[in-house]
Amino acid sequence: MNEFSSNLLQKAVDEISGLPGIGKRTALRLALHILKREQSFAGNLGKAIIDLREKINYCKKCHNISDTDICNICANPKRDNKTICVVEDIRDVMAIENTGQYFGLYHVLGGIISPMEGIGPEELHIDSLQKRCKQEEIDEIFLALPATVEGDTTAFYIYKVLNNATIRFSTIARGIAIGDDLEYADEVTLGRSILNRQVYER
Amino acid sequence: MNEFSSNLLQKAVDEISGLPGIGKRTALRLALHILKREQSFAGNLGKAIIDLREKINYCKKCHNISDTDICNICANPKRDNKTICVVEDIRDVMAIENTGQYFGLYHVLGGIISPMEGIGPEELHIDSLQKRCKQEEIDEIFLALPATVEGDTTAFYIYKVLNNATIRFSTIARGIAIGDDLEYADEVTLGRSILNRQVYER
Repeated sequence: MNEFSSNLLQKAVDEISGLPGIGKRTALRLALHILKREQSFAGNLGKAIIDLREKINYCKKCHNISDTDICNICANPKRDNKTICVVEDIRDVMAIENTGQYFGLYHVLGGIISPMEGIGPEELHIDSLQKRCKQEEIDEIFLALPATVEGDTTAFYIYKVLNNATIRFSTIARGIAIGDDLEYADEVTLGRSILNRQVYER
Repeated sequence: MNEFSSNLLQKAVDEISGLPGIGKRTALRLALHILKREQSFAGNLGKAIIDLREKINYCKKCHNISDTDICNICANPKRDNKTICVVEDIRDVMAIENTGQYFGLYHVLGGIISPMEGIGPEELHIDSLQKRCKQEEIDEIFLALPATVEGDTTAFYIYKVLNNATIRFSTIARGIAIGDDLEYADEVTLGRSILNRQVYER
């Protein structure tokens, strides 16, 4: 695997193996597949990758990926514009949208506070969240951040910065996943799901 | 995972997931990674893919991938040009080169005979192998083809087509891999390795 008979192949394998989770061997397999396919396949693939990075836009309001200045979700008049769901990145937006259970707007932070990786609040889109809360009438900030030290730190920071009498804060419910056995649940999750047990409404 | 907020992202994910072994979820992860990296990364990756397919050359003699008309191996005067190793594709060339145990030339068929997939001898580079055997003085044809029905068929076809009094035919040795236990070997391999047992030289 040290040297290829072609510099073009070497270059392609080097670049493809720069992607996460793809080693030299897989990269070679993909490169040889590209060689076997019709030329338009490589053309379209290469162009899509270049275009994605060059032409991508982010919503000026919520920082979600968008082809327009304001994304479809922010521009949709049917969505509840008094609720903002705060997430780490756009994958979380997709996951929540796929449930079909949330009808408010989003705010994509672009990461979470992590002193270990040198990511402070100023690296994230927290300023613009503050602005949104001042300029618009926001009833609820729904913090859908990871249940890690970093996620909790970020949630706490946002809570401290935005806290005022009119905004209600919420976070996603933690508990035993549907279909999971109690005996295999970790103690922290099981403990929290007991503390936050749901009372039947009468 | 049905719709993205951006057509550029949708297009990139669709194209990337056209690669073998990469599903929509992995494609999205790769696309988001590309978005996070610097612009030159996407530019180089896209260009390498397009260039690979557009500008790639194959050696006119052995059909190995090459940037020149005749590949480094065929052009190397130190190689034994009276021995030709016949392989299915260029990955086999790389594997054999990596052993450092073979010093002859190659001939890349570009596939093997497979009636099930509609691949006959005329789809493969067998004509040019015949030409090489006529034009040059070849001592040995070393068939390094897969040990499958298709591989054996291809080997037999080449043997029938090229057979003459001056060419010696050989094939790679089959047997128990170094480090493997006899008890776990399949019966066909173990059987063959007994039939073809190596006699110590005295």
